[in-house]
Amino acid sequence: MTANILGKVFLVGAGPGDPGLLTLKGKRCLEAADVIFYDQLVDGELLEFAHAEAELIYVGKKAGAHCTDQREIESLLIRKAREGRIVVRLKGGDPFIFGRGGEEAEALSAAGIPYEIVPGVSSAIAAPAYAGIPVTHRSCASSVAIVTGHKASSGGSEVKWRELARSVDTIVILMGLQNLRQIMRQLLKGDCEPGRPVAVIQSGTRPSQRTLVATVATIADLVEGAGFKSPTLIVVGKVVDFRRCLQWRESIIRENTLVAGCEAIEAIPWTHCV
Amino acid sequence: MTANILGKVFLVGAGPGDPGLLTLKGKRCLEAADVIFYDQLVDGELLEFAHAEAELIYVGKKAGAHCTDQREIESLLIRKAREGRIVVRLKGGDPFIFGRGGEEAEALSAAGIPYEIVPGVSSAIAAPAYAGIPVTHRSCASSVAIVTGHKASSGGSEVKWRELARSVDTIVILMGLQNLRQIMRQLLKGDCEPGRPVAVIQSGTRPSQRTLVATVATIADLVEGAGFKSPTLIVVGKVVDFRRCLQWRESIIRENTLVAGCEAIEAIPWTHCV
Repeated sequence: MTANILGKVFLVGAGPGDPGLLTLKGKRCLEAADVIFYDQLVDGELLEFAHAEAELIYVGKKAGAHCTDQREIESLLIRKAREGRIVVRLKGGDPFIFGRGGEEAEALSAAGIPYEIVPGVSSAIAAPAYAGIPVTHRSCASSVAIVTGHKASSGGSEVKWRELARSVDTIVILMGLQNLRQIMRQLLKGDCEPGRPVAVIQSGTRPSQRTLVATVATIADLVEGAGFKSPTLIVVGKVVDFRRCLQWRESIIRENTLVAGCEAIEAIPWTHCV
Repeated sequence: MTANILGKVFLVGAGPGDPGLLTLKGKRCLEAADVIFYDQLVDGELLEFAHAEAELIYVGKKAGAHCTDQREIESLLIRKAREGRIVVRLKGGDPFIFGRGGEEAEALSAAGIPYEIVPGVSSAIAAPAYAGIPVTHRSCASSVAIVTGHKASSGGSEVKWRELARSVDTIVILMGLQNLRQIMRQLLKGDCEPGRPVAVIQSGTRPSQRTLVATVATIADLVEGAGFKSPTLIVVGKVVDFRRCLQWRESIIRENTLVAGCEAIEAIPWTHCV
């Protein structure tokens, strides 16, 4: 460990769950990394890109315990980079969509550590897409808001639910399952029509993806009965209705229909792809 | 050409411009494609993934002329799939963020053509990230809206600029350069503080990326003088201030600083990567 050899940190978006949605640059970072910090939102298959000597460090939620403290993660990133290592901080989705990537970049910048951001496919857009819901559409949605439904993580600013109901066509809520009933109530207070469609998507883009469709007025009761668990994502807006005709993903899984010639796209594990 | 052999269409997000931000699945689709439809927002390097016999069809804007008509593109996708081909419709960013992917999926679904959506990294999130702007941040942004600034493309719904100014922390406007002055005026009418920071980003995530920072009150005059051209993206919100300390991308390009051991991540063309 010499003080004058600095490593580098890559804040990498792992994508929404389907390992095929990792970026080419994300894959290269994983292959080059000496140390990889990952959490529970990252698909295990992605860690197979790491070389045999890479150090893999879990910093997500532990069973019955809290996550590794954010400040502690930042210190670890800095320390490993100061040891001259190539460090990857692998985060579910995109590092700058409620991923605390902004805070990590600030800490690295303040410490004088070279770093790069490698954006990822956000679950806010991809999970609805896999459920047959385009979050924008020329006919009915020229605006989409992505918000956090987890009060504790909003920190300095509160989500203005009532105003949101009036101002955007589509609302995508991440981490909103626990506060679903309160959020729907707030939207209704903001003059949102009770019949506006809502979809709740669990494990978006994974083979175990589940989707429940109802309305702002009825979704909370239905979700409770259906036993949904995190990670979930909530979509509010007319675009939810497109799911009726655009269920491409479920029909592939249900019918196991691979079109001749397309096997190479789906069938080979991503870690074996060239 | 036999009527009972159906091909398949993949609506693939090409990502925001940096070819390293294509997904693994997007790359495989390009490699497997018999026909690729692409437009002006797609980096030419990505087309090198196509095999030698693949048919490449440009459907973007022609110099001094309009784009290929949307209905015509949909007919072409359907016709090629009915010939039994693997068809890729490659779109800048993500197919469901103002990419008209929803309409294409509807047309394919109605015609009984098998299709898949391959989400991409959206320029709405990645271009700000490359400019040092996290669109959400725990300290000041728990909501981000992505909207179109191109009136003609909003179709059935208008963007409610005044309400937006009051309801979300960060506003990302795609295709808003031509209407920039009107948009800023609308935001001010919605009680947006005149001093709220604004960034205009041209050619986001490409080596030629340019960024101009000002305020809601001053940006329109400054952009006119600076000769910005499409594709551009506008970010409105406090998060723009993070650019002061998070200019990671520009410092790499300016100082040409590659950290030892990281060459493999940036230096090899993406089409040569394994």
